[in-house]
Amino acid sequence: MTGLSPGASIGILGGGQLGRMLAIAAARHGLDVHIYSDEGESPAGRVSVSETVASYMDYAAVRQWAERCDVVTYEFENVDHGAALAAAEYAPVRPTPDALLVAGERLREKQFAEQCGAQTTAYAPVDQESDLGSALETVGLPAILKTRTQGYDGKGQVRVRLSHELPKAWAGIGEKPAILERLVTFDRELSLIAARGLEGELSFYDLVENRHEHGVLRETTAPAQAAEHLAAKAQDIAAHMLEALGYVGVLAIEFFQVGDDLLVNEIAPRVHNTGHWTIEGANCDQFAQHIRAIAGWPLGSTLCRGRWRMRNLLGGEIRELNHYWGDPNAFGHHYGKREVAPGRKMGHITFRESDIEAGPRSSALRIAQARENRQD
Amino acid sequence: MTGLSPGASIGILGGGQLGRMLAIAAARHGLDVHIYSDEGESPAGRVSVSETVASYMDYAAVRQWAERCDVVTYEFENVDHGAALAAAEYAPVRPTPDALLVAGERLREKQFAEQCGAQTTAYAPVDQESDLGSALETVGLPAILKTRTQGYDGKGQVRVRLSHELPKAWAGIGEKPAILERLVTFDRELSLIAARGLEGELSFYDLVENRHEHGVLRETTAPAQAAEHLAAKAQDIAAHMLEALGYVGVLAIEFFQVGDDLLVNEIAPRVHNTGHWTIEGANCDQFAQHIRAIAGWPLGSTLCRGRWRMRNLLGGEIRELNHYWGDPNAFGHHYGKREVAPGRKMGHITFRESDIEAGPRSSALRIAQARENRQD
Repeated sequence: MTGLSPGASIGILGGGQLGRMLAIAAARHGLDVHIYSDEGESPAGRVSVSETVASYMDYAAVRQWAERCDVVTYEFENVDHGAALAAAEYAPVRPTPDALLVAGERLREKQFAEQCGAQTTAYAPVDQESDLGSALETVGLPAILKTRTQGYDGKGQVRVRLSHELPKAWAGIGEKPAILERLVTFDRELSLIAARGLEGELSFYDLVENRHEHGVLRETTAPAQAAEHLAAKAQDIAAHMLEALGYVGVLAIEFFQVGDDLLVNEIAPRVHNTGHWTIEGANCDQFAQHIRAIAGWPLGSTLCRGRWRMRNLLGGEIRELNHYWGDPNAFGHHYGKREVAPGRKMGHITFRESDIEAGPRSSALRIAQARENRQD
Repeated sequence: MTGLSPGASIGILGGGQLGRMLAIAAARHGLDVHIYSDEGESPAGRVSVSETVASYMDYAAVRQWAERCDVVTYEFENVDHGAALAAAEYAPVRPTPDALLVAGERLREKQFAEQCGAQTTAYAPVDQESDLGSALETVGLPAILKTRTQGYDGKGQVRVRLSHELPKAWAGIGEKPAILERLVTFDRELSLIAARGLEGELSFYDLVENRHEHGVLRETTAPAQAAEHLAAKAQDIAAHMLEALGYVGVLAIEFFQVGDDLLVNEIAPRVHNTGHWTIEGANCDQFAQHIRAIAGWPLGSTLCRGRWRMRNLLGGEIRELNHYWGDPNAFGHHYGKREVAPGRKMGHITFRESDIEAGPRSSALRIAQARENRQD
């Protein structure tokens, strides 16, 4: 296998906390990192050899930056596809820029999931206001209207409970090309972090269970309890997606579990917030796994050791870190962001909860949860 | 407790692998790092916000650099004491610059160990050639002649088996102020990593067992087997040293075990090669512990989880990393050094060996080892 040599340079499009944790993993592997970000003093730039600050639409700047990189990757799916193609003129881009087209646009994402044999919630495209009526007929209520691009962490989406709310929702998302999705009642949210190496080898972490609040991830529990029977199905979907894209690197899939069904909710062509527990909980964490994959090195062991709970620290919650430095079962991470804003992901804590036994939950708890669980 | 705020800046004097691992730990805690190194493109500089490249004797440059730092620390004991004092004009230097005086000079190191109630090997100062005779009388043979400063990893020292070899040894170390030490036959080498926080709280990792080859650390086993009865003695010595210096940060002490005695061999006022296993093996690793201490934050848990073996990768051995990426019990680290030189510390692998039971070794093995064990 021909992979990168130590001392080689990895370029990362994007400078947020995912880039920061990727840069740290790259450092452990002896690799240099160059960040390209549209904001200066980025969390990732501060732990990397260099940081280029320019617009993602400035393809000349992207080309100049990529020329110094041996491999280019990206840490979020709203990177401009053209920027990834510009970088690809100078260095292999892994995962393929095509993954941005699929994961960065909600309609294509749903279609791609179906092509890969996965179920999704009922959905219909809304290109203009006049499509709202027929979309409503296809999808039914309650539903959620989402912009096709640039939506994340609950942004760019409005819930619709009654049909007369639809025009207001359309105005609420800025009258942009959208997708209307059925709001599904699910048992719980699960996600799978998968990876594919340069030679096509696959690896999967355990399914984990997630809880969102106001559209933002609140907590992940790893591994998900009583999810063993769903693992093969989830891995099958992931394998299809990875193969279809000729994907290299880490891919995350968010599912709604409804009975024994898994509905694909979102695909993220990158390391993922629901995989942060792997830093302490798995032999090889998702960041190292991504670096190994794009470097053309063998993938590491995804074995999960114990039981873990990852809690995001949003906005002012970052101060909670101070309470946990002395706790032997709490592992705090601070992303080094300069500005605290409400709801902003500032850090996370991973708790070792090895005393919690794996096993099926009581059905009473499941029902109570299902009532509260509505997709965001 | 008033500690640094996230986003604060830590300055590190020195840019080697210890600085690199400190910088990574600082990043996890949301802190920025500025490196001061006399060599450019240093391993630590490449994962930090900035790298100042200048001589340690250039106090003006040190002052200018320290002005940007909220706290200054150092990653090796051969930092010029004056440089640390120059930095201290602008930012607290932790640990105290005084620790450099003690640990950077072998005669003072021995005297300090004795002041702290510890045993050492027999020794005598050699300021000039005419001191050799009386030193030999005090110390006896076999012995080892070491320069007082700038010696590490087996450099600046020559063994003396017969008295007529002494003048040659004196020439061999460059006729510099030296110390003659008795070459002691020991059972094994142990080390202790200790830490003291800003408010005086102490913490200790388990004693570990080390094996050197040609004066360079080859392997560390953690925890050391059958060393429980020595822990209190070792911690007592460390506590004395930490208190005597008003020390803040991580301190490492290397011991020779002779029966139930612990002889202090070396004191390192910094994170230490024999503590690298803590990255995977302890709740809070030595690098994070040092960062927390100098930041004025509570110390973390030093609890060791399982059994570990750390192997240094010297020179071309760095290529061994490639064999272990897929091993779930091997954790590779590459320091990103540009040049491979024979014996140079290029990286390390920590092996999880939880299947090895703790317990006393067979006495036959101990005797066989004692025969081979001679201090370097």
